[in-house]
Amino acid sequence: MTDLNAAMAETANKVNAVLQALIPRTDTPENRLYEAMRYSSMAGGKRLRPFLVVQGAALFNVAESCALRAAAAVEMVHTYSLIHDDLPAMDNADLRRGKPTCHKQYDEATAVLAGDSLLTLAFGVLSDAKTHGDPQVRCDLVAALAHAAGALGMCGGQQFDLMAEKMQLDIGAITRLQRLKTGELIAWSCEAGAILGKQPIEIRHRLQAYAHDLGLAFQIADDLLDAEGTEEQVGKSVGRDAQAGKATFVSILGIERARAQASLLADQAARHLDLFGEKAALLREVARFVVERRA
Amino acid sequence: MTDLNAAMAETANKVNAVLQALIPRTDTPENRLYEAMRYSSMAGGKRLRPFLVVQGAALFNVAESCALRAAAAVEMVHTYSLIHDDLPAMDNADLRRGKPTCHKQYDEATAVLAGDSLLTLAFGVLSDAKTHGDPQVRCDLVAALAHAAGALGMCGGQQFDLMAEKMQLDIGAITRLQRLKTGELIAWSCEAGAILGKQPIEIRHRLQAYAHDLGLAFQIADDLLDAEGTEEQVGKSVGRDAQAGKATFVSILGIERARAQASLLADQAARHLDLFGEKAALLREVARFVVERRA
Repeated sequence: MTDLNAAMAETANKVNAVLQALIPRTDTPENRLYEAMRYSSMAGGKRLRPFLVVQGAALFNVAESCALRAAAAVEMVHTYSLIHDDLPAMDNADLRRGKPTCHKQYDEATAVLAGDSLLTLAFGVLSDAKTHGDPQVRCDLVAALAHAAGALGMCGGQQFDLMAEKMQLDIGAITRLQRLKTGELIAWSCEAGAILGKQPIEIRHRLQAYAHDLGLAFQIADDLLDAEGTEEQVGKSVGRDAQAGKATFVSILGIERARAQASLLADQAARHLDLFGEKAALLREVARFVVERRA
Repeated sequence: MTDLNAAMAETANKVNAVLQALIPRTDTPENRLYEAMRYSSMAGGKRLRPFLVVQGAALFNVAESCALRAAAAVEMVHTYSLIHDDLPAMDNADLRRGKPTCHKQYDEATAVLAGDSLLTLAFGVLSDAKTHGDPQVRCDLVAALAHAAGALGMCGGQQFDLMAEKMQLDIGAITRLQRLKTGELIAWSCEAGAILGKQPIEIRHRLQAYAHDLGLAFQIADDLLDAEGTEEQVGKSVGRDAQAGKATFVSILGIERARAQASLLADQAARHLDLFGEKAALLREVARFVVERRA
């Protein structure tokens, strides 16, 4: 196991413990909701966003307990987006991270509510004094996450994606779509540590630049997996983009150029971190990891 | 028109203007999402929750521009909950406030996203410095709303309601269900003004007590409308509870006792406001209004 893999596994374990503690557990009839929240939150996954938060926070010596709460919050938002995207009215997916999707395991109504509840809980966690002693920092985290996840960010990107099925997208439009749909939440993850560490805007901009290239590299890699991977290996349905006739980086650039572009973006992402020196070593490796992953 | 009706109409106009300004409008493909958010947010309704926020804030001389932003936030959460509750997987309702429901007017995927986006935007609005100059106040608003709307509040209540179809509920269980499903959000609305006005906990408790009785009275009145109203008059499908064989206050208490109970709760609610004197006159009238409304 490389250093990066070991560090990611360690963060995953820690963030899992925080998620377990934050999701309610009761003897009441609505406990089924909490089970569904827990089922989808604990379905594995690489915990990439939490890792970005924790590594970003480490650059500025932020207490790990604070970073892990922010990490749990963004993972809740990511999980909610997967639950809702998988619904029959959206991607109608049966499989996610190798397990039945939330609405398959429970039912559609419970899945809608589990997504809603995870989104809501994320904001509750960020606004709580345990996440940071300074309420201005907590407000900044909430405001930035609401922007990244909302109508002008992830939800807008998902809507754009729905509309895109009837459109001819060029590379600029696909880049914009992916920045909204996945890039903004990745950017929040990269920036959260700087917010927690009360860093000046120039530092936040560096991390945004890193996140921008990383997010695009990540999405191109995702398109490559959808085009080339097997369901067993990727842990979710594949080939759906081509089936839906959707334009992706791969359908426009072709496999070879898409791969080269992802690699170039990963290198470029790493270079934005130069000023952080050795402290950013794992974040640089993450950029390489996202384009070389096989799931 | 009574004073109360005029005051409610005035608040509704003001909060509508704030909502209009807060919901994005673009020339991009995802504008359909913003249209859906606007469609459901602007579908009329009494704006009861915003009115409670504005009247609560007026008790403590909070700037109206701040109160209206908090009012818009809770109306966004209320609207999101209606959009998701109306989905085919939940209540499968075609009509809401006399107009096609969001998924009927647009489509199911857009409706899911419009709900998600409104919920997210609510937290963005509350965390913004324009809502209050003190970030601790903004964090308190966010934390309290996340609790009221989330797994241990409204979403939990909605899940309980789904489970209740297969259960025999007694009056205690129905009271708990309704406190979660509708009461918590009404309580946030009543308390928000005290949070904005940095009031001590005893004052918040008074408003919570008022909200508790008001919320229950409101729900009993809702059950009465479902049992007795016509679709045309109420603006949504009626008789659904009986059809679904669901226990309600009306099915357990009968119409006469339910009506008496609602009236008693309204009187009790008003009395919690004694210490606020004349300033709370309209809030006292609201308690009467919710049990006497015909829609």
